[in-house]
Amino acid sequence: MTTTDFQTNPPPDFLIESIVRRALAEDFGRAGDLTSDLLLDGRQSAKAIIASRERGILSGLVAAALAFRMVDTEIELTIKTPDGGKLEKGTIVAQLDGTARAILSAERVALNFLGHLSGVATATHSLVAATKGTRARIVCTRKTIPGLRILQKYAVRCGGGFNHRFGMDDAILVKDNHIAAAGGLEPAISRLKDRLGHMIKVEVEVDTLEQLEEALRLGVDTILLDNMNPPQLSEAVALTKGRATLEASGGINLDSVREIAETGVDYISSGAITHSAVNLDLGLDFE
Amino acid sequence: MTTTDFQTNPPPDFLIESIVRRALAEDFGRAGDLTSDLLLDGRQSAKAIIASRERGILSGLVAAALAFRMVDTEIELTIKTPDGGKLEKGTIVAQLDGTARAILSAERVALNFLGHLSGVATATHSLVAATKGTRARIVCTRKTIPGLRILQKYAVRCGGGFNHRFGMDDAILVKDNHIAAAGGLEPAISRLKDRLGHMIKVEVEVDTLEQLEEALRLGVDTILLDNMNPPQLSEAVALTKGRATLEASGGINLDSVREIAETGVDYISSGAITHSAVNLDLGLDFE
Amino acid sequence: MTTTDFQTNPPPDFLIESIVRRALAEDFGRAGDLTSDLLLDGRQSAKAIIASRERGILSGLVAAALAFRMVDTEIELTIKTPDGGKLEKGTIVAQLDGTARAILSAERVALNFLGHLSGVATATHSLVAATKGTRARIVCTRKTIPGLRILQKYAVRCGGGFNHRFGMDDAILVKDNHIAAAGGLEPAISRLKDRLGHMIKVEVEVDTLEQLEEALRLGVDTILLDNMNPPQLSEAVALTKGRATLEASGGINLDSVREIAETGVDYISSGAITHSAVNLDLGLDFE
Amino acid sequence: MTTTDFQTNPPPDFLIESIVRRALAEDFGRAGDLTSDLLLDGRQSAKAIIASRERGILSGLVAAALAFRMVDTEIELTIKTPDGGKLEKGTIVAQLDGTARAILSAERVALNFLGHLSGVATATHSLVAATKGTRARIVCTRKTIPGLRILQKYAVRCGGGFNHRFGMDDAILVKDNHIAAAGGLEPAISRLKDRLGHMIKVEVEVDTLEQLEEALRLGVDTILLDNMNPPQLSEAVALTKGRATLEASGGINLDSVREIAETGVDYISSGAITHSAVNLDLGLDFE
Amino acid sequence: MTTTDFQTNPPPDFLIESIVRRALAEDFGRAGDLTSDLLLDGRQSAKAIIASRERGILSGLVAAALAFRMVDTEIELTIKTPDGGKLEKGTIVAQLDGTARAILSAERVALNFLGHLSGVATATHSLVAATKGTRARIVCTRKTIPGLRILQKYAVRCGGGFNHRFGMDDAILVKDNHIAAAGGLEPAISRLKDRLGHMIKVEVEVDTLEQLEEALRLGVDTILLDNMNPPQLSEAVALTKGRATLEASGGINLDSVREIAETGVDYISSGAITHSAVNLDLGLDFE
Amino acid sequence: MTTTDFQTNPPPDFLIESIVRRALAEDFGRAGDLTSDLLLDGRQSAKAIIASRERGILSGLVAAALAFRMVDTEIELTIKTPDGGKLEKGTIVAQLDGTARAILSAERVALNFLGHLSGVATATHSLVAATKGTRARIVCTRKTIPGLRILQKYAVRCGGGFNHRFGMDDAILVKDNHIAAAGGLEPAISRLKDRLGHMIKVEVEVDTLEQLEEALRLGVDTILLDNMNPPQLSEAVALTKGRATLEASGGINLDSVREIAETGVDYISSGAITHSAVNLDLGLDFE
Repeated sequence: MTTTDFQTNPPPDFLIESIVRRALAEDFGRAGDLTSDLLLDGRQSAKAIIASRERGILSGLVAAALAFRMVDTEIELTIKTPDGGKLEKGTIVAQLDGTARAILSAERVALNFLGHLSGVATATHSLVAATKGTRARIVCTRKTIPGLRILQKYAVRCGGGFNHRFGMDDAILVKDNHIAAAGGLEPAISRLKDRLGHMIKVEVEVDTLEQLEEALRLGVDTILLDNMNPPQLSEAVALTKGRATLEASGGINLDSVREIAETGVDYISSGAITHSAVNLDLGLDFE
Repeated sequence: MTTTDFQTNPPPDFLIESIVRRALAEDFGRAGDLTSDLLLDGRQSAKAIIASRERGILSGLVAAALAFRMVDTEIELTIKTPDGGKLEKGTIVAQLDGTARAILSAERVALNFLGHLSGVATATHSLVAATKGTRARIVCTRKTIPGLRILQKYAVRCGGGFNHRFGMDDAILVKDNHIAAAGGLEPAISRLKDRLGHMIKVEVEVDTLEQLEEALRLGVDTILLDNMNPPQLSEAVALTKGRATLEASGGINLDSVREIAETGVDYISSGAITHSAVNLDLGLDFE
Repeated sequence: MTTTDFQTNPPPDFLIESIVRRALAEDFGRAGDLTSDLLLDGRQSAKAIIASRERGILSGLVAAALAFRMVDTEIELTIKTPDGGKLEKGTIVAQLDGTARAILSAERVALNFLGHLSGVATATHSLVAATKGTRARIVCTRKTIPGLRILQKYAVRCGGGFNHRFGMDDAILVKDNHIAAAGGLEPAISRLKDRLGHMIKVEVEVDTLEQLEEALRLGVDTILLDNMNPPQLSEAVALTKGRATLEASGGINLDSVREIAETGVDYISSGAITHSAVNLDLGLDFE
Repeated sequence: MTTTDFQTNPPPDFLIESIVRRALAEDFGRAGDLTSDLLLDGRQSAKAIIASRERGILSGLVAAALAFRMVDTEIELTIKTPDGGKLEKGTIVAQLDGTARAILSAERVALNFLGHLSGVATATHSLVAATKGTRARIVCTRKTIPGLRILQKYAVRCGGGFNHRFGMDDAILVKDNHIAAAGGLEPAISRLKDRLGHMIKVEVEVDTLEQLEEALRLGVDTILLDNMNPPQLSEAVALTKGRATLEASGGINLDSVREIAETGVDYISSGAITHSAVNLDLGLDFE
Repeated sequence: MTTTDFQTNPPPDFLIESIVRRALAEDFGRAGDLTSDLLLDGRQSAKAIIASRERGILSGLVAAALAFRMVDTEIELTIKTPDGGKLEKGTIVAQLDGTARAILSAERVALNFLGHLSGVATATHSLVAATKGTRARIVCTRKTIPGLRILQKYAVRCGGGFNHRFGMDDAILVKDNHIAAAGGLEPAISRLKDRLGHMIKVEVEVDTLEQLEEALRLGVDTILLDNMNPPQLSEAVALTKGRATLEASGGINLDSVREIAETGVDYISSGAITHSAVNLDLGLDFE
Repeated sequence: MTTTDFQTNPPPDFLIESIVRRALAEDFGRAGDLTSDLLLDGRQSAKAIIASRERGILSGLVAAALAFRMVDTEIELTIKTPDGGKLEKGTIVAQLDGTARAILSAERVALNFLGHLSGVATATHSLVAATKGTRARIVCTRKTIPGLRILQKYAVRCGGGFNHRFGMDDAILVKDNHIAAAGGLEPAISRLKDRLGHMIKVEVEVDTLEQLEEALRLGVDTILLDNMNPPQLSEAVALTKGRATLEASGGINLDSVREIAETGVDYISSGAITHSAVNLDLGLDFE
């Protein structure tokens, strides 16, 4: 039982089947893979490998494997590097054994999953590596690519990050507009205590140290420090004295993240690791 | 009837409803928008605007509008900038009039569509602008984010690009593996002529000028010049003399695209505009 | 903005449409409402009322209204008692105005939703009323009727109860088997602190006061006191001194609940309010 | 070929897969079984048994088995008591062999199906047992829990009952409102004879013996005697002399059903066996 | 309230929406109606009529109207001839008012429904007309085009025919294989009486008069006389003396049907009216 | 690798599963196969054969096999004649080995697919055979039965035909209404050249030789010669001199097709082979 095993628990197949089926349907359309169907003999078997063409962290093998299996249950896929594993240029990810036609027909969809999700894992891991040795953990947000949230959240875990809310229903996050509508933070928190069940955490977004003090006084689980610079964040940490979990957000990138982490905040959230991840280049080659 | 109108025809609502519904379902989960539901009065009305926070090209309003409508049919959305329109920092995209609760509940999903698809349109437009004045057109590929292909293809059109194949079924693209399996390009093309209907175009991928000459001799519609440098591409154009459409691919970016376009190729295809687009920053603010 | 409004926020239509459509599909089958179709003129209009035939709390109007609308968008439904409202024998719930045929065709499905969900709300409210004046809140569990969880959770809120976890993903609940597999409570909690994001609460199930003390020492959000009798519960409350939220479960019914609530526990959870609710008798009559 | 085999034919898997998938999706949400995923090693195997904690009739194993299989195709489930079998406190229903994690992840959904459907079967069987030796058969109605009709109808068969209509399309049931709208029973029946195919049976609901005589004179297959007391029912049986099937309904419970059955009616229908069944307590324990 | 109204009750929209959506999805694919999108201005309005180009009976307007509405909710469709109406060459079926682009995009799907279902209605009506004055009614079978059963059954009603079973679940039809497996007709019927609910009719297929006599003696609702010639059918009618409904099947066509009807059988079933209907030619023209 | 193998590539299972599931759902309804369930022992095994009762070309085995597998994964189906194979009266198509109950329950749906799709293949093959020796190829159209397009297109290939467009998105077909709206053929083609990607072919429909000349001058891939008689078609061929692919349509039947093919056109398109195919009679018999 390795740490990796706990960290990267993939979503069960029955939850991602519809995502993979939709991706295949997009690519097969109505007539299917015309080129392979017309040029390749349906009985010709082949061996292929999926390998990385650059450095990064792998994610998405669970979806890629499902894509091959849906196209042809006879394709055998042997995992050489599991999701969450480190990739160098040339690292072999998986071996495939099946008909050449089926492998080629599923190739693009499989690589699209691997490339995108490994991109998310790699972007996450860059921030994780840059903050090594600090207490700060990297978390994702709800700024995800529509339709891929559960896979992107999984990719964040593959990259060593943690998951924030999966949606609007598994935790409370009170923002400016909510506070204004509720007539202030105090009545807002009071209302939540009246109405909220006991298993839901509450986070409040603050822009100033005054708001932070009010939030601490009212007692919330987590406080989002929005767009504060490192000196302000340090002051916030000092002021909080462990009375709440602190999360920094806004302007997080490879240049800024280390300094922010060193302020002592508990979490640093980044939208870019999911909404602007650069595709990792992986390829499939016949042996 | 403007040019834009022709270019950016959005997919009809019935084709993207399931995509938007899935995105909302991801965010609402089972309990919905707990924060807004508990803190906001369901009857409190509000006006809000969606505006861009940076320069770019807009795409995705068609999906964002559907998201607001699905959450609450009473929300009125007034378009101020249509999909395909140019955005500066501060450009107003749309005005919203509805209950504060419904607007906030749909906000993130709507912005996720707008941010991602505008990112694709903007990336496309950068290449289009960089090749202005040449004959080369920018086209996308099948390297798309799983589940979003029809919307990404639309975003490419919003950015001034053209669409390549939507899937494996609407055109033939013969690659190395196909040629090897068919015993050479000549038997491959002969087999296609035997078996393919009259309304499907055929493209062949070549790596060398020798392969290009063979492809031209056999008569195909389009030839993909893979990873050739500008001098090779120029030679290919000279050699082809208009007998086939030429498409350059591999290593396309803002630095290289102009020089490639000036070789005289007809199309330049880029995977990055869809698989690695950077989110465009748009925001929703209450008035 | 009434308390009721906050409490009973119904799930948005787009989340329950598939539940209502499936229920209608079950009843219409392939040939539809043969009796009404053959005996009633499709243009004959009618007015009907839905009324309660016994005392209770209403829930499910949101689903019933959707059922009528799906069968015929022209049916007008006027709400006389909102979900969460008190019902006496004869209380009018809603008025309907449409064709007699459409009203009769949708009647049974609409009443099935209303009867079942009002049964849940009424069972919940009985426990809520029986514990009035104590600090204890009534919560539901994951012991729900398959396919109806979001509507049953809503019905619990209509009855004045609170919601526990909606599923296995929005909070942690550590039970015997988990503790055994993790090698004890201490390593289990340590592992959770290592791996869990900051917005998820942790509950631990204990059977004895010794386990309670260990859980308190390790610091968890909530402790489930399973099958303890009132004296044990009182001792647990005294021992806890507010360091964790306490939830009593096991053997909860109208006879036992008051005495349990008076021990000072924070929450009392009941599976019976969702898995064994008795249908509330409501009827539809033409005027 | 036992009697049980005929009686309890379960619906084929392909008809209940979507019901089970929806139930699992409710419980797994987006992040899945957080507790088991974080605390249990994914390779740790376990053996468990499902056993009854009280007396009753089993139903729902077909759905429970599908739930385990969908979560993990490797779980082996060995049936010890088939659906329709008698349960005592401690009766073993099934043995499970698989990973501890997968078994725990599917446990609640599987037990929710078993508990509810066994509740329906047990309630049915109580009425069947109470009428033993009479000619009366117990039948269900369309008053079912939305979304579970085919499984509840199956559970009724498991309990020894018979199925009435599955929906509004497989038989005619003429009620007051239909008769009024058609201008009387005679024109109603005449219209049905004109328009109805030959494979659909016709039932008419009557409240009085006068209506019964009219229905007999007009010739219908079945007559529903609504809310009649035992003396009235006896008179109805005497008056009918076998010219139609007689079904008693209204006020059916364990106290009243024997006396009603002894009047000689052919069928007794109960809504409570499906809409108000009390969950049967079954549990899953690791060995 | 006309006879037609009763006869042709169309399935409710919510039951056929998925059929129409699938048909549109087939035709729009991913990129939609490229030709109209690129050549027509999206604001150009148009008027069009749908008219018949040959004689027949109309069916399918309910699906065609839904197709136009799904493509563009703004298209106004005015019915000139209702489903079930008689068509001559040139009869106007409906008028359309909307954008030219939307009308053209939906045209083919709408006409495919109208052409096929009117073909079924017309084929049915030919048999109905040929048997006019006899007691025989024309019924369809389960030999339908996959995916269109509820619409084909409706088209049969539009043509003046009656519906046989909609599926294997709404009536019993005992064939040779069943009788063999049950050990003869007598044990088969006995078993059915033991196990079948009271609202399901029983039909038995017989090939000979001896089998007919046995079926009559055992008492079944309907007897299917399979592939008997007119003299045999006449003898069967004489022998039956009204003790069961008689249905003739096998070799039914326009040449044979009158003679078969005149034997006095109650029903004549035809698979060809649904599985081999010839498309009726309808067209859409702009005004 | 036979020619047949290339020609008849069936759609992958994951694309037709929803079509087959829908067809089974139509036939099983909610209660399933009542007759077989009540009369046959669920353990009784049987062997059966599917054989043709008339001459033709087989298609649909891929869907039929899926139907049997969905009903019972244990049924073994051995193919004796593959799709595309020639059938005589008595030709065995497949052998089945499984339980009698499962085979009977799936029989009708399987035969409905086989009968209809073999009907399409046979109708196609008749035209193919009638044009043997000419250069003309037979192609289908978008006039297909709603919901079955991908299977009908496959059946056309089984019959030796070729596929035209699968939908409105994989090729351009410019008709009268488009030309009128665009202000003439010249501006229409110019607009297409401006806006259309490089992998989409363009076809233009013409009624006269003048229009043909204009289309040739403008340079399109294919020209549809609509409703021209053989002399006109011959003139069109002469005039075209190979500058475009020519497709004849309108009034195509077994009587006319040879003469049309002999004019030298490249393709002949027929709607009747898909929208009016006569069911081919196949049967299932127990051994």
